[in-house]
Amino acid sequence: MTVFDKSIELHRKHRGKIAITGKTPLANQEDLSLIYTPGVAEPCRRIAENEDDVYLYTSKGSMIAVISDGSAVLGLGDIGPKAAIPVMEGKAVLFKTLGNIDAIPICLDTQDTEELIKTIKYLAPSFGGINLEDIAAPRCFEIEARLKKELDIPVFHDDQHGTAVCVVGGLINAHKVVSKDMAESSIVINGAGAAGIAIARLLLAYGARHITMVDIKGIVNRDNPETMLNKGHEDIAKDTNHGKKNGNLADAMKGADVFIGVSRPGLVTKEMVASMNEKAIVLAMANPTPEIFPDEAIEGGAAVVGTGRPDFPNMINNISAFPGILRGALEVRASDINSEMNLAASIALANAVPADKLSATNIFPEPLDMTVPDIVAKAVSDAARKTGVARI
Amino acid sequence: MTVFDKSIELHRKHRGKIAITGKTPLANQEDLSLIYTPGVAEPCRRIAENEDDVYLYTSKGSMIAVISDGSAVLGLGDIGPKAAIPVMEGKAVLFKTLGNIDAIPICLDTQDTEELIKTIKYLAPSFGGINLEDIAAPRCFEIEARLKKELDIPVFHDDQHGTAVCVVGGLINAHKVVSKDMAESSIVINGAGAAGIAIARLLLAYGARHITMVDIKGIVNRDNPETMLNKGHEDIAKDTNHGKKNGNLADAMKGADVFIGVSRPGLVTKEMVASMNEKAIVLAMANPTPEIFPDEAIEGGAAVVGTGRPDFPNMINNISAFPGILRGALEVRASDINSEMNLAASIALANAVPADKLSATNIFPEPLDMTVPDIVAKAVSDAARKTGVARI
Repeated sequence: MTVFDKSIELHRKHRGKIAITGKTPLANQEDLSLIYTPGVAEPCRRIAENEDDVYLYTSKGSMIAVISDGSAVLGLGDIGPKAAIPVMEGKAVLFKTLGNIDAIPICLDTQDTEELIKTIKYLAPSFGGINLEDIAAPRCFEIEARLKKELDIPVFHDDQHGTAVCVVGGLINAHKVVSKDMAESSIVINGAGAAGIAIARLLLAYGARHITMVDIKGIVNRDNPETMLNKGHEDIAKDTNHGKKNGNLADAMKGADVFIGVSRPGLVTKEMVASMNEKAIVLAMANPTPEIFPDEAIEGGAAVVGTGRPDFPNMINNISAFPGILRGALEVRASDINSEMNLAASIALANAVPADKLSATNIFPEPLDMTVPDIVAKAVSDAARKTGVARI
Repeated sequence: MTVFDKSIELHRKHRGKIAITGKTPLANQEDLSLIYTPGVAEPCRRIAENEDDVYLYTSKGSMIAVISDGSAVLGLGDIGPKAAIPVMEGKAVLFKTLGNIDAIPICLDTQDTEELIKTIKYLAPSFGGINLEDIAAPRCFEIEARLKKELDIPVFHDDQHGTAVCVVGGLINAHKVVSKDMAESSIVINGAGAAGIAIARLLLAYGARHITMVDIKGIVNRDNPETMLNKGHEDIAKDTNHGKKNGNLADAMKGADVFIGVSRPGLVTKEMVASMNEKAIVLAMANPTPEIFPDEAIEGGAAVVGTGRPDFPNMINNISAFPGILRGALEVRASDINSEMNLAASIALANAVPADKLSATNIFPEPLDMTVPDIVAKAVSDAARKTGVARI
């Protein structure tokens, strides 16, 4: 049986993956009078008097919504809200198991940017945070930016920032392994979509200075309008490719120290890796089939290779980031998840690999390492306090 | 300690009343590959191909949204979405414990009718049904009517229909106790709001013919425009008070067989009950303080008295209805909850009190009788099949 057959069997057997449970007893009339009428009127009254008491008397403080419009689900694309539910339920299981966060999967039946923003704002009172998921670019940028500005609870777009946090975390360790300095590295990011741009931004925040973005029209160059397909490209072009290079992916990779792929299967050849600088780092994140398989990249001379796959060393997966990031934000009732918090998560992830275990085939924590979420959460809540977005 | 102090303590201790749990194991890399990537792509693909498969591979079929705008919460009124959360979480615990339904509390930050309708439609893909709760009249009528028409999943406004199902169930048994025929009874309903009108409609469906509605302007009379305050009054006036009586509540109650109060504390006196027909039935449902206390009503000559309170006989509470009704609807994937299904629930509730136990002080099942939801669910799903709204 393939993983797909087994997955279908599991989903059919359980009819989905999540359930609600009561945290309070309900065995007799007295229990009923406390959790429901008449007793429940009292927490209602207190919250009506002081809105912040909602964190004391309800589940809001540990509950988030995992929201998608079904427009960019895994590699499957625009499959609609119903077909997106299995992914959101899976995410909810991960949030619970790894972050002790109660995540509610909500798949919305609209793909209109303004309607999505408005709907998520209407939903906000019940939730301590919002995790946006599998929403197509460029819509996802506008939705995230507006919600971050207009809501007082943290909003996190995992496809952007979860990926960025993990890639940067892995890259920090990869640089240690090859004894290079990220500030000096020449970094090529293939795929200037939601994830690629977020990776570039977080790398810049960390101190990287030489980033080249590549997309379907080639190297993104602020002086070459043909290569800037949308507002996201225009913005990131200002801070990348300072040499104003033109060309295709192969041109970009020549002499580069780092290749990061958040694009499509098989775009990178052994020869392209061979054209990179010595001790090259290759993070080929296309899922489930990477831009280049690790054995080929190594044949091409790469010193460190990571992918999103469990069947090769250096699996780099968002699972290591999002439970801890949201947990850290919820714990201090952060009003935002800012880039300092994301960067703190990256550094925490890098440091979660002990120095004596760090190697070319071990740059990143195991995806189900249950110690990681706490480490990340602590770093994130500290960063929230330092940057003034913590509310408790 | 009062029930309110105890309730605050319980809410504070547990930080709310509900949590998410995973139904599937997540202990190792293989589990991860089945519930999340890459395996999860398969249920996504199947649902994308055949939308109805969403019921096979996700929690949709047992998951409902409990939705409020916080505009008419308990007796507290318009306390807003955050302050409404404790009630919705309490309801979720009841749905789970009594109906094995996974109910998600969602308190929306808008009170605009059209925005509420649109938002709930956007939310629908994730849920097998919608339970509307504590939404003010007359907005709640429009919202319910539109959603019932425009959604293919069942929509239930508990404040209307849950109350109606229980009151009619209790009334069926009260009539048995006093050996009267509902079709001949003169029935006064005080409070022509959401619940009162739903009770009148369900009584008409059962076969009652002599109903008089009373509201703050007195007896609702189709020939007296002053007594018809809104569209709800205009509609129900066509089917009630065929004698076109005018007057106040005291006038209405003279000679009546049944008083049903869904109004305010203390509106009914012993003398008003004494003016009713012999073997009068009084269901004083105002919560937590009834229109008249049972001892006074009995002094006034009432033969059967019910309230919403646990400290008197004949507690009539929606808890007996909503878990079974929604369970029955979900089990057959009903596209609607129609009046035949509601009436079947009323009759099932009445029959849940065994004939040899039936008495003036025992007309209704105990609120936490765990056998009741199954009995109600069976009746409701049978009625769904008979009326052609069942889809499996």
